[in-house]
Amino acid sequence: MKKKNMGGRRRPPTGDDQRWPGYATGIRVCKRLVSHATTHRRTNTVSVFLGDLSLINVCLLTYDKDERPIELSVVLLKLAAKMDNVMYKNAVCKSERTPVETKEAISMASSSSLSPPKVPKELYFINREKVLNSLRQHLTETSRPLHGFVLLQGGEEQTRYCTDHLELFRQESYFAYLFGVREPGFYGTIDIATGKSILFAPRLPPDYAVWLGKIKPLSYFQEKYMVNMVYYTDEIVGVLQGHYKEPGKPLLFLLHGLNTDSNNFSKPAQFEGMEKFETELNTLHPILSECRVFKSDHELALIQFANDISSEAHVEVMKKTRVGMKEYQMESMFLHHTYMYGGCRHCSYTCICATGENSAVLHYGHVAAPNDRTFEDGDMALLDMGAEYQFYGSDITCSFPVNGKFTSDQSLIYNAVLKAHNAVINAMKPGVCWVDMHKLAEKIILESLKKGGVMVGNVDEMMAARLGAVFMPHGLGHFLGIDTHDPGGYPKGTERSKEPGLKSLRTVRELQERMVITVEPGCYFIDALLVPAMENESTSKFFNHEVIGRFKDFGGVRIESDVLVTANGSKNMTSVPREISDIEAIMAGAPWPSNKTAPSNS
Amino acid sequence: MKKKNMGGRRRPPTGDDQRWPGYATGIRVCKRLVSHATTHRRTNTVSVFLGDLSLINVCLLTYDKDERPIELSVVLLKLAAKMDNVMYKNAVCKSERTPVETKEAISMASSSSLSPPKVPKELYFINREKVLNSLRQHLTETSRPLHGFVLLQGGEEQTRYCTDHLELFRQESYFAYLFGVREPGFYGTIDIATGKSILFAPRLPPDYAVWLGKIKPLSYFQEKYMVNMVYYTDEIVGVLQGHYKEPGKPLLFLLHGLNTDSNNFSKPAQFEGMEKFETELNTLHPILSECRVFKSDHELALIQFANDISSEAHVEVMKKTRVGMKEYQMESMFLHHTYMYGGCRHCSYTCICATGENSAVLHYGHVAAPNDRTFEDGDMALLDMGAEYQFYGSDITCSFPVNGKFTSDQSLIYNAVLKAHNAVINAMKPGVCWVDMHKLAEKIILESLKKGGVMVGNVDEMMAARLGAVFMPHGLGHFLGIDTHDPGGYPKGTERSKEPGLKSLRTVRELQERMVITVEPGCYFIDALLVPAMENESTSKFFNHEVIGRFKDFGGVRIESDVLVTANGSKNMTSVPREISDIEAIMAGAPWPSNKTAPSNS
Repeated sequence: MKKKNMGGRRRPPTGDDQRWPGYATGIRVCKRLVSHATTHRRTNTVSVFLGDLSLINVCLLTYDKDERPIELSVVLLKLAAKMDNVMYKNAVCKSERTPVETKEAISMASSSSLSPPKVPKELYFINREKVLNSLRQHLTETSRPLHGFVLLQGGEEQTRYCTDHLELFRQESYFAYLFGVREPGFYGTIDIATGKSILFAPRLPPDYAVWLGKIKPLSYFQEKYMVNMVYYTDEIVGVLQGHYKEPGKPLLFLLHGLNTDSNNFSKPAQFEGMEKFETELNTLHPILSECRVFKSDHELALIQFANDISSEAHVEVMKKTRVGMKEYQMESMFLHHTYMYGGCRHCSYTCICATGENSAVLHYGHVAAPNDRTFEDGDMALLDMGAEYQFYGSDITCSFPVNGKFTSDQSLIYNAVLKAHNAVINAMKPGVCWVDMHKLAEKIILESLKKGGVMVGNVDEMMAARLGAVFMPHGLGHFLGIDTHDPGGYPKGTERSKEPGLKSLRTVRELQERMVITVEPGCYFIDALLVPAMENESTSKFFNHEVIGRFKDFGGVRIESDVLVTANGSKNMTSVPREISDIEAIMAGAPWPSNKTAPSNS
Repeated sequence: MKKKNMGGRRRPPTGDDQRWPGYATGIRVCKRLVSHATTHRRTNTVSVFLGDLSLINVCLLTYDKDERPIELSVVLLKLAAKMDNVMYKNAVCKSERTPVETKEAISMASSSSLSPPKVPKELYFINREKVLNSLRQHLTETSRPLHGFVLLQGGEEQTRYCTDHLELFRQESYFAYLFGVREPGFYGTIDIATGKSILFAPRLPPDYAVWLGKIKPLSYFQEKYMVNMVYYTDEIVGVLQGHYKEPGKPLLFLLHGLNTDSNNFSKPAQFEGMEKFETELNTLHPILSECRVFKSDHELALIQFANDISSEAHVEVMKKTRVGMKEYQMESMFLHHTYMYGGCRHCSYTCICATGENSAVLHYGHVAAPNDRTFEDGDMALLDMGAEYQFYGSDITCSFPVNGKFTSDQSLIYNAVLKAHNAVINAMKPGVCWVDMHKLAEKIILESLKKGGVMVGNVDEMMAARLGAVFMPHGLGHFLGIDTHDPGGYPKGTERSKEPGLKSLRTVRELQERMVITVEPGCYFIDALLVPAMENESTSKFFNHEVIGRFKDFGGVRIESDVLVTANGSKNMTSVPREISDIEAIMAGAPWPSNKTAPSNS
């Protein structure tokens, strides 16, 4: 900004003046507003954009009787170049003027300090190398020859029912991990003998150019996805046979195995002419899944960005939450922020925007419970929302009172969960067993509930009676990566518990460096679980029935961060306000500095 | 407020004058807006244009606990008055500027004058009655007995590949038409003998209450979807047998037929125990499809709302478009506006946000062309985006230069398409053949291209050579309803043309009252079509090769509205700026008055 020219506001504008008459004053007034608002903590966001964006946008907040913030007004001074020009025409002369060059942004409403990073091409190359090495090692250890092909089939576009409505395509995750291909209809292979990677692209009809865009040459994909060769899918048989230097039918390692979250099996690749190959279904899936458990630096950078933009969006939503809104408006604000500023077209999962007693529904937000409640003064909100950036996800939950001020009951439950969340993150390091972390969280929550008068008696006895699972029926967390529930949680030799709560754990492993896992303790008042436990002869005594009555419509609290296991401990990749004082301040208009964001490398 | 003093707005303000020229008017307009908002309970925000330099956007966001609106505008206006006063002192004294008339606008940046309407329960009841009557008539005409059941199976939730990632469920369209059920896993039936409707709901496991929400009693669905009875899906066989009063196996009319847009067949209902029934696959599909072609008043109201909120969102995007943005940011703004203010969780189709030469790719925006270009000064944008509200869709395209100012070439192409768009809508009425409308659009575009020096020679000869299809390879429009490409376009006895352009028509029918059809002429410069036509010996002479060279990277223009055929003509349900002067004004900051919005009933 050229400050020297500002003085010109008192002299009449001339045709070659770079600024309109009110510019300097506009700036000055805005600065005053910003300063006033900041001092009195009465500002939401203030932005001043002059130049070809030319927009002054000042949002002010006021407070009601109970010191709850109300968005009073938005003053929007449109100083767009064209409008400015018109004014000039009216006011001074008919001059053709260039747009004002100065651009000043104090802080922009619905803006962002982030921009989407480029995806390094090596990411998928490194993933392939890792799988190849792991597979070769396994074959060596089991005295099998080092030849054949890893062969995966990418996803296909789906139409909705019988119509031509195309669902927005999202690549199958194992295929995305190895090849990064975002387009549908591909196959990909790695030659185990040579390590060479080959993609097979669909041969598109000439009509495609009219309806769907330029038909890209094969070299485009070769360059984009850093593979050694690209052919058409109708050439698979010949190409694979040509590359196979051994006698007999070429051996294909196909992907087939159980997803322990869905209990579905991944579908092995299929193509015409498969009978000309030997296929092997048992080896690839566990190896590939295990590789996905440990994130490379490139992968971590993407997960970090997904976390950064989602964290920022959570704060945006927190700031803009007002009593009387609909739950889906929170979802809309989140989606908009992460797409507009983060380029995230997909979310990691359907947003859970639960308020009031809905916050006790763990997977709220789906079509039969579609975030459609109008929330009321006094409600807690539980927002579980995470954007996906270039296949890599985030999974973040914030809980806060919609009116911006915690009651004592809300503080009690919130702090119980926060204490568990923090204790787990502090305890995490390589070698620590995830089941122990789950129990640690349960115990801290039960202790807090006892301290708050909700529970009565010996906490160890409550633990033994598995009462932790009454308040937290879900698992403490899960691996996170290309899938929100990333695979690898139950490798061979591990077993799922049958006990309440523990049976919901998506992994029982010991932590290891480069795992990314969510830490998401929660405390919910769910009739379907509370009533039986409170009526049960052996567990009834632990509940303070009168106090619990107060929490009947409370819903629940969940606090969820995405945590990287480092060599000596852990690093929280999520950066949102967690302390009650921080949340209350932000909802009252205080800034949440992005420089508090955790750095993107451990 | 002392009204008498307000008249002073024409005299220049003095230092101690607390008011600025537009103050009185501003206050008055604000009060009127507040009153309007209160009466209609439908505003978040209103904006008031004051003079030519400032725009005040007043938030009336807040309702108190008793649903009384809190008026917050006056303080703001005082504040603005002070700001304006300062500016005024600096600017006005040296100019010939007369105080500009205060303009008012209900709708403004990131706000809306709309709110989502309730869906009348009778909607689906009326749809069922229509189908029942039509089916009974058909059975009578073909001398068949009036008994048996219409049986449809609703959609099921889908997980992504092998994972537990649930895609957001959207009901199958025929099922939505008859029953309106938004939840997955249902069956629905109509007893042809009695006319009674029965829904079958999935029996949910007790765990559902913990993870997915309260298990609703069957009476909830009976009331919500206005059916006669509700049972569980595992009771289908017994219930249907119990209701069947004839000898022998009960007869089921199942849905099976070709979708003429996708060439897929709808999947008939399946359930355990089907062998105890007779099934009939040929009758239901054409009858049900034909019913869907003609929209009831209730259906029209929903399509109108989808149009209203989408129109408003298009204008929002237009206003906020700035050179240097990414295409997907337009998509994000549209999605946000229609969800935030319209409650539209789904879009009718993936947004097409094409700029520059991408605007010649008819179905741009899909995963392999994902709206990811940064657009540049001089580009045209073609935005084809429509929200879906409670199953009913909209489909709207706006084309405009991203810098807000049409060049002469852009005006030429734009006005050619606009002329075709308007001529078609004016010509539409019952009895008019859609193929003729397509040809009318082609002819007008070719005439304009000839006038503009792009084409040379006799337009009728160009038409005979099907050159219209070089510039507009797609059909003029399609039925719109629960599907974006609503069925019924090619009923028995009609045939698809094989000629360029015409073969892309999604219907060849004569127009009839209550059809809703898109009118979407376009003019594109697509190498894959232009080059062969310009090289072809018999058609080369029609092209001014030199002029066309200028349009090489132009892309294309499409203008698309959703039009209802009325008894005597047609009604455009879409309300967006179409004239170049309007578009340029709006992009320069002028309001787009929502009172120009077409009324929501024909």
